[in-house]
Amino acid sequence: MTELRKDPIVGRWVIISKERGRRPHEFPQEKVDRHEGFCPLCPGSERMTPPEILVYQKDQPGGEGGWTLRVVPNKFPALRIEGDLGKAGEGIYDKMNGIGAHEVVIETERHDVDFFDLPEERVADVLRAYRERTLDLKKDQRFKSVIIFKNHGSAAGASLTHSHSQLIALPVVPKVVMEEMTGCRDHFRFRDRCLFCDIVLQEMEQKVRIVEESGEFLAYAPYAPRFPFETWIVPKRHQCAYEMIEEEQIRALSAIFRRTLRKLNLALEDPPFNYIVHSAAFQAGASEFFHWHIEIMPRLTKVAGFERGSGFYINPTPPEEAAKFLRELPG
Amino acid sequence: MTELRKDPIVGRWVIISKERGRRPHEFPQEKVDRHEGFCPLCPGSERMTPPEILVYQKDQPGGEGGWTLRVVPNKFPALRIEGDLGKAGEGIYDKMNGIGAHEVVIETERHDVDFFDLPEERVADVLRAYRERTLDLKKDQRFKSVIIFKNHGSAAGASLTHSHSQLIALPVVPKVVMEEMTGCRDHFRFRDRCLFCDIVLQEMEQKVRIVEESGEFLAYAPYAPRFPFETWIVPKRHQCAYEMIEEEQIRALSAIFRRTLRKLNLALEDPPFNYIVHSAAFQAGASEFFHWHIEIMPRLTKVAGFERGSGFYINPTPPEEAAKFLRELPG
Repeated sequence: MTELRKDPIVGRWVIISKERGRRPHEFPQEKVDRHEGFCPLCPGSERMTPPEILVYQKDQPGGEGGWTLRVVPNKFPALRIEGDLGKAGEGIYDKMNGIGAHEVVIETERHDVDFFDLPEERVADVLRAYRERTLDLKKDQRFKSVIIFKNHGSAAGASLTHSHSQLIALPVVPKVVMEEMTGCRDHFRFRDRCLFCDIVLQEMEQKVRIVEESGEFLAYAPYAPRFPFETWIVPKRHQCAYEMIEEEQIRALSAIFRRTLRKLNLALEDPPFNYIVHSAAFQAGASEFFHWHIEIMPRLTKVAGFERGSGFYINPTPPEEAAKFLRELPG
Repeated sequence: MTELRKDPIVGRWVIISKERGRRPHEFPQEKVDRHEGFCPLCPGSERMTPPEILVYQKDQPGGEGGWTLRVVPNKFPALRIEGDLGKAGEGIYDKMNGIGAHEVVIETERHDVDFFDLPEERVADVLRAYRERTLDLKKDQRFKSVIIFKNHGSAAGASLTHSHSQLIALPVVPKVVMEEMTGCRDHFRFRDRCLFCDIVLQEMEQKVRIVEESGEFLAYAPYAPRFPFETWIVPKRHQCAYEMIEEEQIRALSAIFRRTLRKLNLALEDPPFNYIVHSAAFQAGASEFFHWHIEIMPRLTKVAGFERGSGFYINPTPPEEAAKFLRELPG
């Protein structure tokens, strides 16, 4: 069981394990097993995960060839789906029960293929699963946002190598989502335009930070990136939430997303990375001013005390150089 | 040369290297040499650093016994002291020159002694140097804040093992400092009381999160910590900025700070950690509502995609358990 607690100074919510905390000697360096031993995400191990929430079959609708994608509840969830929120104060502090959903998207039946090495149509399936699961979780009135993300490589927080990503549905709006919505709303009030639409126009005009471009999407190095080779993908058409994505956009996104990740993988020699889908919170009335996007963050530098404590990042690679390097690579 | 750039969405400033960026193959895993080879911070290597800004001598004022603490400009500064800010726009983006100060506090002449193993009076010297340097940097009208921090251990971002910490003076207010000041100001407007003064009162009443207490200071696990064994030290008397610290407080802080770090070192078996002094920005008019403090963050867990992308942390150790564990240890 977990508890959600709010930092009273900056309003950041954290999930605290309540049952029995990890004690000092229980923080070993986690190891990732790539090829050896047992994999709970492989075909044949289906009983090792909780029952499926969603499954895509080979040659549907029959599916005799087995599954190609499964979504299952996380076996060790940070939040649990049953129960009420139990919002309460504790003096000046605020807390609630650790209610939410924590799901794992097993992106392929193959143990040894990375996400970006899957065929484009399989990448599209993963993007469809993100949409389908988000639309379903959105029906639960307790949830205010869904975070979709991937940890690739041990240094990026992955504990299993079999290609997978995660969805976490939350009864609160995470700090970063709140900040982005506030920034975009302020811009909209001032300019009567969407900030990301303005960014897309300027990037297409300046061209120096573009990594890949297609009719529907732009992959680019942001103007003020925290990390070397940080790359964002944004839809050209205005759309506030990921789950609004249409089928033709899914096909376009699977192409540019796959190419961009392959370029990063080639340039940086199989780097650990995270990506996260930034989407408007539910019921936030953000349709005019927010614009969903994906942030890809390779993990090449250490985040030291200065960055952690101040939120101020030192980036040794200008985005214009990173973009040029990636732009010139084959996809 | 570097450039300061502002993220237009959340208002976060980053420092971007402009001269020649690090290219893909230039991100090796940095290694830390503990005992072998040459140390540029040791006695005898004084010429390897830029000239001293501040020095404390053995048995002052003669100082024939050599130095015990030196403050020098960082040899590879993220920001440079000379020049004007050159604030400018670039379409919808904002930038300025990378002006600032970046100093290194060499905390002891001894290569192989950790900060928290120094005698209490030497720890007090380090705290005095922080105050002295901040007061000097504050005179420069271009600077809006000074960040004081330590990276201990390679995983926490240290590239040299010889005990040292750093000061960075900035022409902008970092995002975290701005957020904390905003949160404290909002609390003050609502309650007419300082938020940290309220926290100190509640923690002293509840007692469950206290690690160490003295007449002047409280060391405690915050209610909503991001990291296991995260520990904050706060002065009991209301004071908005670190540089206002008085001599008697310095002596009191050196005792509780040293004991707290020794306990963390003992409990977690020489963990990598960061600490950072959170202090009001200069000329912020924050004297009534802000309250300086030190945040100590051991690095036991990996910060994965979810945390990085959402600002939402999962902490496997309740602060009440961490505090109890540390409280019962010898200091």
